[in-house]
Formats: sequence, structure tokens, C-alpha cells
Amino acid sequence: MPELRKDIVTREWVVLSKERAKRPTDFRKKGPVQPTLQFDANCPFCSGNEFQTPPELLAYRKRETRPNTPGWRVRVTSNKFAALDREGELNRKDVDIYDVMNGVGAHEVVIETPDHGKTIPHMEEKEVEEIIWAYCDRYNFLREDRRLKYILVFKNYGEEAGCSLVHPHSQIVATPVIPQKVWSKIKGVEQYREYRNKCVYCHVAEHEIKSGERLIAENGGFIACAPFASRSPFETWIIPKTHRACFARMSRFEVAEFAQILRETMLRLYLCLSNPPYNYTLLTATCDSDTLDNFHWHLEIVPRLTTPAGFELGTSIYINTVPPEDAARHLREVEIPKAMTLTKPLLSTS
Amino acid sequence: MPELRKDIVTREWVVLSKERAKRPTDFRKKGPVQPTLQFDANCPFCSGNEFQTPPELLAYRKRETRPNTPGWRVRVTSNKFAALDREGELNRKDVDIYDVMNGVGAHEVVIETPDHGKTIPHMEEKEVEEIIWAYCDRYNFLREDRRLKYILVFKNYGEEAGCSLVHPHSQIVATPVIPQKVWSKIKGVEQYREYRNKCVYCHVAEHEIKSGERLIAENGGFIACAPFASRSPFETWIIPKTHRACFARMSRFEVAEFAQILRETMLRLYLCLSNPPYNYTLLTATCDSDTLDNFHWHLEIVPRLTTPAGFELGTSIYINTVPPEDAARHLREVEIPKAMTLTKPLLSTS
Repeated sequence: MPELRKDIVTREWVVLSKERAKRPTDFRKKGPVQPTLQFDANCPFCSGNEFQTPPELLAYRKRETRPNTPGWRVRVTSNKFAALDREGELNRKDVDIYDVMNGVGAHEVVIETPDHGKTIPHMEEKEVEEIIWAYCDRYNFLREDRRLKYILVFKNYGEEAGCSLVHPHSQIVATPVIPQKVWSKIKGVEQYREYRNKCVYCHVAEHEIKSGERLIAENGGFIACAPFASRSPFETWIIPKTHRACFARMSRFEVAEFAQILRETMLRLYLCLSNPPYNYTLLTATCDSDTLDNFHWHLEIVPRLTTPAGFELGTSIYINTVPPEDAARHLREVEIPKAMTLTKPLLSTS
Repeated sequence: MPELRKDIVTREWVVLSKERAKRPTDFRKKGPVQPTLQFDANCPFCSGNEFQTPPELLAYRKRETRPNTPGWRVRVTSNKFAALDREGELNRKDVDIYDVMNGVGAHEVVIETPDHGKTIPHMEEKEVEEIIWAYCDRYNFLREDRRLKYILVFKNYGEEAGCSLVHPHSQIVATPVIPQKVWSKIKGVEQYREYRNKCVYCHVAEHEIKSGERLIAENGGFIACAPFASRSPFETWIIPKTHRACFARMSRFEVAEFAQILRETMLRLYLCLSNPPYNYTLLTATCDSDTLDNFHWHLEIVPRLTTPAGFELGTSIYINTVPPEDAARHLREVEIPKAMTLTKPLLSTS
């Protein structure tokens, strides 16, 4: 008999269709093209082609190099085809019976490496750390702009995940409204706190460590686990053990720990599912939240292995054919080749 | 400058990226394979292959023919790979900190025609009417089961829309919970009524008829229009002019009118976008709603022309590159070949 499971935060139900359970190999198809070149003359994100992008907003680069020239390790620019404009007034108004405002916000690209073909599983931890620092630095910069209400860091990888440029990059979009999806999580956190007097994500992290059946990786500060009500096969969340509303307030040590577990998780997914297309989203508190209570930041990774159809569109109930306990076991047990050895999980000081 | 528009019911925002506006031809790709055969020996939905499906639950067929033999025009069976089980108790319970229940419900297939290659745009109106009658009859049957809380009728067309069998069919799924997405619409309807003392969908239908700029088709009882906050290019809603919570309470005349506008709308989409993949969902009241106040049924058609990515997953804010006013104009102005002539819109008796 299939099972219905409820997301503990959003209260969305998921159908777990155990009878149709699938193995990782069932999802292996021709993955995204993995470039073998370090440089592609036509790629605007490659080192040497800096003139093809808007001017850089941030770069971690060799001390003696000038902006918008080679020598950077991570580089952030405006998105050339930005969905939202950096300049202008919000000008919210009624149009007949409807509600509109100007598309003011920000849309930036984080170019993760000068190397055209180097994805997260192939990076050193230090390189992943710098990507996360770029997220934090840009987040903290944009947060100063009082017109902006929410800032989402996300990554699309592979064509099925809506990615059009193969050079490794993430994106940052800042919106002048708080998205409904974020509200529904905030409301979930608040209601759980009223009811149980604790943070739901803290409770989930504690429970998943204790139970272990959905755990994928763990270090001093973080866990990676398959959520109990996984909407998609191999959905994976990275949750900090320490309660913190906003990711951009991480300490230097926490950034290193997060880089370690992010790289390990991406490597496990890469090996288990043969380089799957995926999206990840970094869910964090709203810009104007001055309380630590109403959110607990985390990263959600969704491999794009199935196509949501009419049922999902109409109900937002997802049908998932891989129980998260199976997904977690496959990801835990994946064999990691010597050449890609994991560094030892860092020991927490806390 | 891009524009942010708010959905009047769900309060979800949409980014309308006018600068990147696209024409219908930009979305024309190799559409779903259009079978030219009337019969495919390997297709379980073809007339003559009735033994390949579970026994029929309903069929409109020639009087002298027996169940599960040829002679039917529309046929409904259980889905062979049902996501939910017809038998069993709900048995809702806690598992540690989480909430689960048995996957009890229904999952049926409406085989729309015995003809392997005949899609809605190519049908006579009478044929479309019978599909709608099948939706109504099965809805009213399932509604008697007190374990079921919501029933969704939907259709997936084309591989990009999650459809695996090309023979024209729709699906019906009944769930033992009210989906969150449905709640959010009900709440929107209720809040609008508190605020303005009228039904939001009645108000939208009135406004769209008066304004005309997003209108695609109209007959005595219905309008087809592009919603003001369209999430996807060429999204189209069919809304009854008369307030009614549940579609399955339509009168005979209303069914005929709905069939007329559904066929016309599907034909316009088919011609304008060269046979696009799409999902449609028939949003209706919850099973146990005994008031006409809290919902107004309607059909939402979403052509699958773009790939939602990390930003949409993280925020549920969609970025749409085709303003609904442009989409509606393209669909209104599409040239309809003589061979596919539309019947005259029916005159309403009311």
C-alpha cells in the first residue's frame, strides 16, 4: 500500500509509492555534458573572456590583478539577462482589480571557478569555501538595500534543471516581496514553536541524527539527510545543527564545515546518479527579520529525475517512487574512488 | 522595466519580463508525436485491446455491446499503476515526530476516444461532451466515498508534460486529504469575499469580459482568458460565468457550452503553438463542501514550454517572458483552417 507523508514544516503531503520503488540505476541517463576543456573561447564565464560579462561586483583574485581581467578564483557579476532591475522605485499600485509593482530587485551570477569544466564534486574544499563566501558577501551587501525583502541563492545544473550555460555558476536573485513559499515555511516554523516550544528544523536535525535511517553525511556542524516527506527521488537537505536564521551570519569555521558537507553531498549524488541534473536552493530568513526565532536556514538539493505533471500542478502533492530511507542508504553506501577522497569531517569546536 | 504581478486568488507573485518578450514561433519545437494510426496493437487504450487494462468502471458504448469489448466511445478504468489504493483504512498516525497515513484513494484513467490519434482539437463537440460527462459521472460516484476529501481531474499531453502513453486520455485522482494548493485557493476565495463581498472568480470573469485584452474565447456560459498573473507563457483559464463550486453539478446545457469552449481553446493553442505539450487541471470544490460560497470551479491549461528552475523551486515566483495580453492576442488572432471550422458559440438560455 502506498503511504502519505506530511512535510513537518509546510504541511504539504507526499505520496510514497513503494511498490514502484526504483534503484539509482533506473534514473541514470545521459547526464549533462561534462566539459573536458578548461577554457572555451565562446564561454562568457571563462577566464580571459571577462569583457563578455557586465563588470564584476565582487571577485576573489590575485592581489596584483585588476578587476575584469584574469587572475580571479570566484567572480560575481550582474546577470546579463536579469529578471529584475537594480534601479528604480517600487511604485506598487492597483491596475483595475489587480496588484502590480515595478520589477525592482537584483539578479547576479556567481562564477564558481575560472575552469570551464570543474564542478563542485571535483573541487578542493577550499574552492567550495570561496563560493560560499561569495554567497555571504553578496547577501550581506544586498541586504543593505531596504527595497529588497528576500534574497535567494540557487544553482541550476544541467539542461533538465533549466541551466543554459555549462560553465559552473550559481545565481542570486533579490525580490522586493517575500515569496509565498518562504511565508509558508516561516509560518510552519512559527506554528511548530507555538505548539512544541522548539524550532522544527532543530528538532528534525536531532531526530535524524538519532534515527540515522535518512542520514547521508554528518560533520561537526551539519547533517545531510533525505527529508521524511521527500517530494522527488534523492531529494537531499543540508541542515546546520546550530539554530541560525540567516546563512550569511555563519562563522569562519562554520563556512568551512558547510563547504565540507556540501562537497561531500554533491560528490555522493554525482557518483550515485551518474552526474544528475539538479537544482539547489539556499533557504534563509527574510531580509528584515531581526529575530533568530522564525527561521533556520538550510540548503535543499533536488535532482531533476522526474517530470512533475498535472497532478502535481493541481494539488502540489508529489508522487515519489523512491522512499527517502532507500535514497539515503544508496547515497551513504556509494563507493568513493581514491582519487576523489573525502577529507576527514572537521571536528566541531562547539 | 520588468513588472511584478500578484495572483488575485493565491497572492503568488509573477515576474513579467517584457523586454525578453517572445513570439509563439519561439516556442515551436518538435511537438509530441502525433500518431496517424487509428489503431496500435501495442496500445492498451485502443479499441480491441480492452483486455490489456483493468476492468472498465464506466463506458459510454453501443447498447448491444458487452463491457470490456469494443463498441465504446469513452471508457474509464482504474490506472494499472495506481498511485493510491482503492481499498483500506486511512489509519492516520504519528511515526516519531512525523505524520503519515495509508495511501488510500482512487486513480482512474479516462480513455477519451477509441481512436489512437484523435486529440481534442480534432474531435467533434459531441465527442468532447462525452469526455466531460465521464468526468462528472466518475466525480459524482467517487464523491460518495467519505474517505476521499478531494478529487482532481487532469490531463497530461506530451512527454514534456509527463505523459507516457500517446493514446488520448485524462486521469482522475482522489486523495484522502485536501491538498495545500487547493486550501490556498479556498482561502483566497474566502478572504476576497470577506473583503469585497463577492466571489473573486466571478469578479475576474466580469472584469476580463469588460476589458477584453486577455480574452481568448467566450460563449454564453464561459470565458477562456490568459490570467493577469500568468505563471507560464500562454497559460489559459476557462472560467464559468455562473458561480458554481463544483463542476460536476453542471446542467446538460452547461456541459455542451463547456465542451464547445474547451475544444475551441485547445484548437487555438494547437494551431498557435504547433501542437504544444500541456497539462490541464480541473479545479473544483472539496468533496465535503456543502456551500456554494467558498469555491468557483475552473480549468487551468498550462502549455509546457519552459523549465521551472531553482528560482521557481525556491520561491514559487515564476518568471514569464510572454505578457498574457500578447498571448491572448496571438490566440485570438490565430487562423482557423476551414476543415477545422468552429461551430458557432451556443447561445445561453440564461
